[in-house]
This record gives sequence, structure tokens and C-alpha cells, in this order.
Amino acid sequence: MREFILFSRIGQTDSNFGSLHDAGRLDIMHECIVSSLFLSHSLRRDVVFHAILNGPPNPPVHIKIDGQTLYDVRTNMETWQGIIKKTLASKLQTPSQQLHPGINKDKSSFEALLKSKAEAGNCKIYVLEERGRELSEIEFEENSVFVLGDHVGMPRKAELFALRFGEKVSLGKTPYLAASCITVINYMLDQKVKV
Amino acid sequence: MREFILFSRIGQTDSNFGSLHDAGRLDIMHECIVSSLFLSHSLRRDVVFHAILNGPPNPPVHIKIDGQTLYDVRTNMETWQGIIKKTLASKLQTPSQQLHPGINKDKSSFEALLKSKAEAGNCKIYVLEERGRELSEIEFEENSVFVLGDHVGMPRKAELFALRFGEKVSLGKTPYLAASCITVINYMLDQKVKV
Repeated sequence: MREFILFSRIGQTDSNFGSLHDAGRLDIMHECIVSSLFLSHSLRRDVVFHAILNGPPNPPVHIKIDGQTLYDVRTNMETWQGIIKKTLASKLQTPSQQLHPGINKDKSSFEALLKSKAEAGNCKIYVLEERGRELSEIEFEENSVFVLGDHVGMPRKAELFALRFGEKVSLGKTPYLAASCITVINYMLDQKVKV
Repeated sequence: MREFILFSRIGQTDSNFGSLHDAGRLDIMHECIVSSLFLSHSLRRDVVFHAILNGPPNPPVHIKIDGQTLYDVRTNMETWQGIIKKTLASKLQTPSQQLHPGINKDKSSFEALLKSKAEAGNCKIYVLEERGRELSEIEFEENSVFVLGDHVGMPRKAELFALRFGEKVSLGKTPYLAASCITVINYMLDQKVKV
């Protein structure tokens, strides 16, 4: 199992927006969903994607997308703008309510989510950071969780919190888009499995 | 210099569409533009991206995007829907007219474009194909041109034509999105330069 956690610093937490871009760069969340979960003509059933939105008006919002049960989705922006809008618009009826097959929303903070992963103890956590250990040198665990920021990066405090549980890793000095980091990590993990 | 050539089998060749997705999957072209040319907060100045659109009503249309001179662009869909629409709507005044800084359109076919690259003789051409040689084994030339298809792949005839000039290469058996292939290739080339 692979998990990706995107820390979105200004991602809007209600549905009052005209475009994903103008909603605190939720277009980056869309790009990351596509890189995490989509292959050509199929979905990665062994991937879970999380976004923690920390923008106004009601942070935090945790959106979880589970490749195992996700369906009726395409890669394009219109599809995901619709799903994200509907998800953010809904009132939470239960602690973790499903609004589209495979998609849940709750009020978990970044710290609470990371802590729950660490306490479950069956995975290894990696925090993407320019000065980390080269990803290409790493022997990944079967269950790996990758934490990354969006275009403005994670606040120092969140990063330090994440590093209590995880190891700092890097794709080198080239400053890749968040979605590109995910694509490369997925590719690297695919290569390891193949060998 | 790196170049990517996307063969779009049904990409629409006029501007009469409501969304890139519905225009013969020009959303795939948008994804490929982003993976080819965008880093976080900057552009790849050493990359040229080409799309050859072969859909109705006036195929072929060749759109060339040159990272060297491209500016005033963002990654999001709205930006590129606007640019692609404007480009497709314009009447060609000169053989290769520039409609946005760094963006040209002409009537070159896939075959003509490939032939011109091959005849220039200063680059190596690679054709992405599942049964090709593993990309990770290849020592790339300084000037590399990568040819790939969209969600329906290249027609057999176009692929055979491309293979007269290029080598068949592969990212393995996992069927990646076209944009993901480009991201991984860019990463691999970045790694080689670094060493």
C-alpha cells in the first residue's frame, strides 16, 4: 500500500469558488490526485491519497481518496472540480462520511492524521524535502506514506512535526511540481516491485 | 535540448468546443504541456513540446511550445484552454505564426515533423512503446526527441513511420498516462545531467 499526504497551506475549505485554481490552488490537489491514482485506462487500487486543506473559512479539512473503492472518475479538471465542490459543500453527518465512492471527508488535522499513521505502526513515513536523502537510494517498505507540500511548501512547524515520525527524503535539487514528485515516486515503487 | 512530440489521434483542430476534454481529449495535451515544461515556480527553458492534432475538422495541426521563449503561463486548465482555443481559432497568416509568446501553429503533419528532425541530424529520436528497450538502460544523447501517443495510442502506420528514424523505448509494462511518461523521462534526464 502507498499513501500520499498533501499539505495544502491555503486550500479553501468551503465550496464557494469559481475555479480550483482560485480556491487556494486546489488545482494542485487535482494534479496530485491524478498522479497518485491514475494509470492509462485504470486506477491504482493500492494507493490512498489524502489532502489536508488549511485555508479559510473552516480549516482543517481532510479529504481521503481510496483507490480501492474509487470509481466513476476521470482525470479531467471538470470531474474533480465537481467532486471537490460537492465534498466541501456537504455537511458532515458522521465523523467520516462518504460522498462519492472512495471519497471521505473529516476534520482531522495534519498532525492527527500523521500521528494515527505512526501509531498504527505498519508503515514507514517519508517527508519530501529538498535536503533529504536521495529517494533513488532508498529501499522502500511495502507500506510507505509520503508527505509533501504544495506550491508554498509546508510550514516549518508542520514539517518538524512530520519529521518526528518520518525520514526526510528528496528528489534532488530540481524543484518539481508536487504532482511530478508523486509521479516519479509511483514510478520508482513500480520499478522496485518489478525486480 | 529535449523535445516531446505528442501524437493526438482525435484532438480537435478548430476552436469550437466547450472543454478540452470534449475536444478529442485535448485535456491530455494540457497535462503533457505541464509535465514537459513546468517546474515549481519556473519553466524548463531547454524543452520544446509539440502536439500534432489529427482530429476533425482540419487535420493535421501542429502546435509547438518552446520553453525558451514561453511566458505569461500557469499550469492550470483555464490558462491552457484559453491559449489552445485562441491558437486553434486563428487564421494562419504566415507559415508559422506566433499567437502567444513561445507558441506557434502550422500545418505540418506528424510525418513531416519527424522527417525534419531526422534530417537535421543533430538529435536522437525515441518512440515510446510498451515493448521497447527499458528507458532506464539508455544513455541519452544531449539532444533527445521523444514521441508518444495519447490515450488511444499512435496508429500503427504512424508508429512504423516513426521507427524508421527512432528507437523503440519503454517505461515497462505499467500503462502510464502520457503526461506521467513525460514526467518520468524529464526526471531521468535531470538525474543524468546531475551525475
